[in-house]
Amino acid sequence: MPTISQRGTQMPASPIRKLVPFADAAKARGIKVYHLNIGQPDIKTPEIAIEAMHKLQMPVVEYSHSAGIASYRKKLAEYYVKNNIHITSDEIMITTGGSEAISFAFQSCLDTGDEVIIPEPFYANYNGFATSAGVKVIPVLSNIENGFALPPISEIEKLINPKTKGIFICNPNNPTGYLYSQKEMEQLRDIVLKHDLYLFSDEVYREFCYDGAVHYSAMRLKDIENNVIMVDSVSKRYSECGIRIGAFITRNKEVFATAMKFAQARLSPPTFGQIAAEASLNTPTEYFKEVYDEYIKRRNFLVEGLNKIPGVYTPVPKGAFYTVARLPIDNADEFCKWMLSDFSYKNQTVMMAPATGFYSTPGKGMNEVRLAYVLNIEDLGHAIETLEKALEVYPGRK
Amino acid sequence: MPTISQRGTQMPASPIRKLVPFADAAKARGIKVYHLNIGQPDIKTPEIAIEAMHKLQMPVVEYSHSAGIASYRKKLAEYYVKNNIHITSDEIMITTGGSEAISFAFQSCLDTGDEVIIPEPFYANYNGFATSAGVKVIPVLSNIENGFALPPISEIEKLINPKTKGIFICNPNNPTGYLYSQKEMEQLRDIVLKHDLYLFSDEVYREFCYDGAVHYSAMRLKDIENNVIMVDSVSKRYSECGIRIGAFITRNKEVFATAMKFAQARLSPPTFGQIAAEASLNTPTEYFKEVYDEYIKRRNFLVEGLNKIPGVYTPVPKGAFYTVARLPIDNADEFCKWMLSDFSYKNQTVMMAPATGFYSTPGKGMNEVRLAYVLNIEDLGHAIETLEKALEVYPGRK
Repeated sequence: MPTISQRGTQMPASPIRKLVPFADAAKARGIKVYHLNIGQPDIKTPEIAIEAMHKLQMPVVEYSHSAGIASYRKKLAEYYVKNNIHITSDEIMITTGGSEAISFAFQSCLDTGDEVIIPEPFYANYNGFATSAGVKVIPVLSNIENGFALPPISEIEKLINPKTKGIFICNPNNPTGYLYSQKEMEQLRDIVLKHDLYLFSDEVYREFCYDGAVHYSAMRLKDIENNVIMVDSVSKRYSECGIRIGAFITRNKEVFATAMKFAQARLSPPTFGQIAAEASLNTPTEYFKEVYDEYIKRRNFLVEGLNKIPGVYTPVPKGAFYTVARLPIDNADEFCKWMLSDFSYKNQTVMMAPATGFYSTPGKGMNEVRLAYVLNIEDLGHAIETLEKALEVYPGRK
Repeated sequence: MPTISQRGTQMPASPIRKLVPFADAAKARGIKVYHLNIGQPDIKTPEIAIEAMHKLQMPVVEYSHSAGIASYRKKLAEYYVKNNIHITSDEIMITTGGSEAISFAFQSCLDTGDEVIIPEPFYANYNGFATSAGVKVIPVLSNIENGFALPPISEIEKLINPKTKGIFICNPNNPTGYLYSQKEMEQLRDIVLKHDLYLFSDEVYREFCYDGAVHYSAMRLKDIENNVIMVDSVSKRYSECGIRIGAFITRNKEVFATAMKFAQARLSPPTFGQIAAEASLNTPTEYFKEVYDEYIKRRNFLVEGLNKIPGVYTPVPKGAFYTVARLPIDNADEFCKWMLSDFSYKNQTVMMAPATGFYSTPGKGMNEVRLAYVLNIEDLGHAIETLEKALEVYPGRK
């Protein structure tokens, strides 16, 4: 039997997926599991997107242009301009989810052995795309005490060496919900400019900023126009994760042309998804208002509820729909597994993502979990109550 | 400005795309361009697939399972069993087009520097996926004289060395239309078994076999069950290229589990496409009968027409919807470009794919082009006539 590739062996398994069998077993025992572990919102997809499918008139479902349907790219550029991101449609490449945009960015900009600095905790799948491209992720630690703000630039600078090719941020952040300020973005700009690095900016949660905070895109930074690659996706913006439509955006013509070669090899992004995404651009403003109101209600409810549990602390995230909480536990992986396999309260339990999966420094995040506030208030209430009861009896409590 | 990756620099540009600006310029001059260059059929997508979109009831368009929607995988397994390919749904992973299945195969099985042997001419994008994975393509020459049959096994064996990890075939073949016989498949089985190699088998044209010839899948080969990875796609089968639904299929549990890690990193294949593909499995038999009749009519018309042109030769392909023709020309790249930029007849011209793009041995395919018979008979007639006139006056005629 032939051997598996080394990269396949090194490829990290999703830290959340490891828990799925335990969740399935709990459900099989008749236990209600509250899923705070995933970024799959329960928010309705805009009706306008589904209607676009209902109206589909397409005798032959052809490949689209490898960079995406022209009319969609054009309208998407207008959306960005409205959001203070001044780009044109030929700087936009439509991708199969934000995932593919990350993959194109790594493939086009980084070689095997190159290093990319990422503030940790970070979205676990960055590890997968890095492994796939042979790229080394160099973490720089952010801290729950200051809400996971950008680590001091001096800490980032210490890690820069000739192999360093870029810095990767997610803003607003998954898993922490942190929203980088304009000042932090400008600090990043300075160091990127000084060392001529790429700045990869995953901005798929752009729409989810709270308390009057304003999103400051990496595309707005001056003097590093050719260094910035923005990753985007409609998955969260319109709660249409399944359509798999993202975007790879850069003003750097050489990087764009290189990414196009990868895009052409895979022919085209999904046609139906692009049609739905184009339609979604006409989503009425009230939709976002309702979504905003719902998320801020949930965030406040969850953060308040968590901080009332003895020994638990979570900051108030300004963006996205996640928060990382510190729990009085020995081991987040063990605790999350125990919640599913050994614990239930009123015949219910909670599935959370151990934060260990979001750190690449071994031993970090052992007493932290990520919670996604993608459930309604009532369910969140049950989940918080269940977590509180669980912490009271967890054998590994600290 | 930071540098492009080496792999990005090495990434081959699509050989056909290079001609697109010349085709666009011809159209801008008011010239009708017959596109025999691409595998985008004009055959209608089954109505049942579009109807599935019209009936879509989905309040939240969620991620599907990373391996695909369970009901689709189950029904797809039934389709394979009907086609004499005995696999179960847990050996099927739904991918974003056949493209992603190739990518998962390379990533899971091959490392940077590993070699994979591919009979040439071959589908040009294999080069892209290989470059992306750092894999070296080792070509073994097939020949127009015998219709591009499998090269002698002795020629393949000469190329095997410790870095050789697999053999990659496309059956029926793109670009040649050649259909491997059971005997040839068994020869491949023997050498794969002897050297414990992977056998990657791209079978996306399975449905397109002519003259009573029967497709013999690599999945039917005995004793190498753990060595075979089949790549599939619904793009050509149902003329729905744009939905981007393919499949990665293997009985090798370790390879499957490894590929799943790559699949999980990109979250899920497109939901809408999967729904359309699942519906397409119920396409009435008459559809395939009509498509078959249409393609065989076109093939016969094209092959006969080409072989009547002085100095032109093309074999009779037994599968897919391509044929490679030898032309009396000096340089296929120059000729195909000249057809678009310097020639027209009755205000029309033909776009073809220079075969050079399908060979990785330098200098091969210089007097060959690939023609896809994806146009109706009337247009094919115009295209053949135009090609004949062009060859009469082409300055580089040999």
